[in-house]
Amino acid sequence: MKQTRRDFIKTGGILAGGVVATAAIPNTLNNKISKQQSKNYEMNFSFKPHTLKLKHVFTIATNSRTTTPDIITRIEYDGVVGYGEASMPPYLGESEETATKFLSRVNLKQFKDPFELEDIIDYVDYIEKGNPAAKASVDIALYDLVGKLMNQPWYKIWGYDKSKTPNTTFTIGIDKPDVVRQKTREAKGFKILKVKLGRGNDKQMIEAVRSVTNVPLTVDVNQGWKDKHYALEMVQWLKEQNVEFVEQPMPKTQVDDIAWLTAHSPLPIMGDESIQRIPDVIKAHGVYSGINIKLMKCTGLREAHKMLNLAKSLDMKVMIGCMTETSCGISAASQLSPMADWADLDGNLLISNDPFEGTKVINGKLSLTDYPGIGLKPDKNVWGKI
Amino acid sequence: MKQTRRDFIKTGGILAGGVVATAAIPNTLNNKISKQQSKNYEMNFSFKPHTLKLKHVFTIATNSRTTTPDIITRIEYDGVVGYGEASMPPYLGESEETATKFLSRVNLKQFKDPFELEDIIDYVDYIEKGNPAAKASVDIALYDLVGKLMNQPWYKIWGYDKSKTPNTTFTIGIDKPDVVRQKTREAKGFKILKVKLGRGNDKQMIEAVRSVTNVPLTVDVNQGWKDKHYALEMVQWLKEQNVEFVEQPMPKTQVDDIAWLTAHSPLPIMGDESIQRIPDVIKAHGVYSGINIKLMKCTGLREAHKMLNLAKSLDMKVMIGCMTETSCGISAASQLSPMADWADLDGNLLISNDPFEGTKVINGKLSLTDYPGIGLKPDKNVWGKI
Repeated sequence: MKQTRRDFIKTGGILAGGVVATAAIPNTLNNKISKQQSKNYEMNFSFKPHTLKLKHVFTIATNSRTTTPDIITRIEYDGVVGYGEASMPPYLGESEETATKFLSRVNLKQFKDPFELEDIIDYVDYIEKGNPAAKASVDIALYDLVGKLMNQPWYKIWGYDKSKTPNTTFTIGIDKPDVVRQKTREAKGFKILKVKLGRGNDKQMIEAVRSVTNVPLTVDVNQGWKDKHYALEMVQWLKEQNVEFVEQPMPKTQVDDIAWLTAHSPLPIMGDESIQRIPDVIKAHGVYSGINIKLMKCTGLREAHKMLNLAKSLDMKVMIGCMTETSCGISAASQLSPMADWADLDGNLLISNDPFEGTKVINGKLSLTDYPGIGLKPDKNVWGKI
Repeated sequence: MKQTRRDFIKTGGILAGGVVATAAIPNTLNNKISKQQSKNYEMNFSFKPHTLKLKHVFTIATNSRTTTPDIITRIEYDGVVGYGEASMPPYLGESEETATKFLSRVNLKQFKDPFELEDIIDYVDYIEKGNPAAKASVDIALYDLVGKLMNQPWYKIWGYDKSKTPNTTFTIGIDKPDVVRQKTREAKGFKILKVKLGRGNDKQMIEAVRSVTNVPLTVDVNQGWKDKHYALEMVQWLKEQNVEFVEQPMPKTQVDDIAWLTAHSPLPIMGDESIQRIPDVIKAHGVYSGINIKLMKCTGLREAHKMLNLAKSLDMKVMIGCMTETSCGISAASQLSPMADWADLDGNLLISNDPFEGTKVINGKLSLTDYPGIGLKPDKNVWGKI
């Protein structure tokens, strides 16, 4: 898939009018000052809105949209800059307004050493409940910064082999058969596709895709099925269509039904809407075969890395997913992907105004850069000082 | 406690006669060659026995001894050297012979990039079942090497604040009251002591310690109690003696009794003999309040770090423990200690021939160095080329 990010960015002009807010509000909850730091540098945190423009109208079981609210963050320390991102699809409850309010309270100047990731991210997490995408935007920027200070990409710091990245799925949204066929044709570079189901035309969707391609599929029902027997019949049929797993087949509240389905299913049943943070992984054990980890839901890389290891310890499958995001969020998430069973990191390919270059898809497979941190290169035309 | 390591090393001469074995046996199980490595360096792995001399006869519920078999490992890559260690108290089943046999099969030359920690440690783990200390000796040397290649100590790479290291316990072994009183007096620099119990003279032991000091205590019963009601009575009495937790009160096979004790106990009940690797942490959930993580039992830092995060995710307490070890194993384990509830890292203080300098105990508290890797400095008189 040929990217034309740069052209869109040049003409987009969205960032030019963005607000730059430097958070300098003292935090009364936590006044910790690191004692081991001899250097006298400060972390300068700033952020600006960057509404994502979607290339196509995006339809899932519950809504449709053409843009995604998004905020880009930046932490500068000793001349080194880390970047982060908060992507906020409306149905998850965060917005540019809530994230701006939250991020305005983030005071990183009280910490003298960005390496104290656990303390800093704990502090951010305790500012206020919720706000996972806003929290992720600080976490990702901090990881990017610290990786750059170590001059290593995180996949290396975590000990992963980047040749083991999975193929990423590319998502085919719910639509009429001829549109689905056209989208499937356009996705011919991908070795695995993710088909959205759950709006009553499930078999029609799969048949439309299958009329164009034989690549393995995964399906995401987004809680669309309500009856466990129907769900099991569908899963059995989907297995025959070379589907690798089924994501969130039923409403997350139907825990017993999902556990029953997982126990009887010939395919792995993956939790998505049920899974946000660490405690959800433990609850998912015995209910789902595996989990979908998304930075924007789990507050960022620190928690995502722990969830990945936790799920593996519990013998559960792991997929790394995303929202519509810039290459910032995608490159961050992709650092974890060599240890994941599946990756669904196509969010940057769905937008037309990506201000970063990072992890790419080459022959369907995630290809990590060797840039330090989260593996990112910001577009100089947009960002100026890097 | 004043250390006289250097003097002992100079006159000890144990290492001088040690065998240096460079493992070059091709591994048929795994012939993976890293593809992303442009440099043409190799990892050179070697090891030599270094029997530890104990300052005092060491008595626990099941045996007594004056030495501990130990092997020091070394991985050299691009002129940088990482050190590791296998400490093998006889009752755990490994020996200099079994470790030598295992380590002779380790062929790291097939891996071109030491950063691929997950793959390399998986390979070592799959060579043969068991052999956790021998495996740990490779894992620790590899972590030391990779940390040095990043020029950072692991506590920083993991995002920890080194000012948060706990006080370490110092162990008072089972003995007659006057010897116990003398040992307790000698341990006056420590802010917390660990008292071995489980040989029938429990109250006598605690009373002997309490006649000398009021510092908090922890107790390690080493499976010595057989009756759950006796155990609960003892725990209640121990709480009144300012004991913070009870370690492995009953035989690890008495799972239901231990779960009952934990449910009724006013103090945390920690698992030790029950805990080796990741699956044991999951089994311990609901049975123990927390776990004792030891590098020599869990195969090293990779697994220890995952066990720590797993236990925290399960809301369990964590202590980092050790065998009698040199400062190599202790410094490695101490990198994790800022995230632990308790540390029991006194093993290097119990030996008279420590060939390393690393993490120290200052005013009872673990004090990590800022040396990269596991924070170690080998004694040049013993090691020559560093």
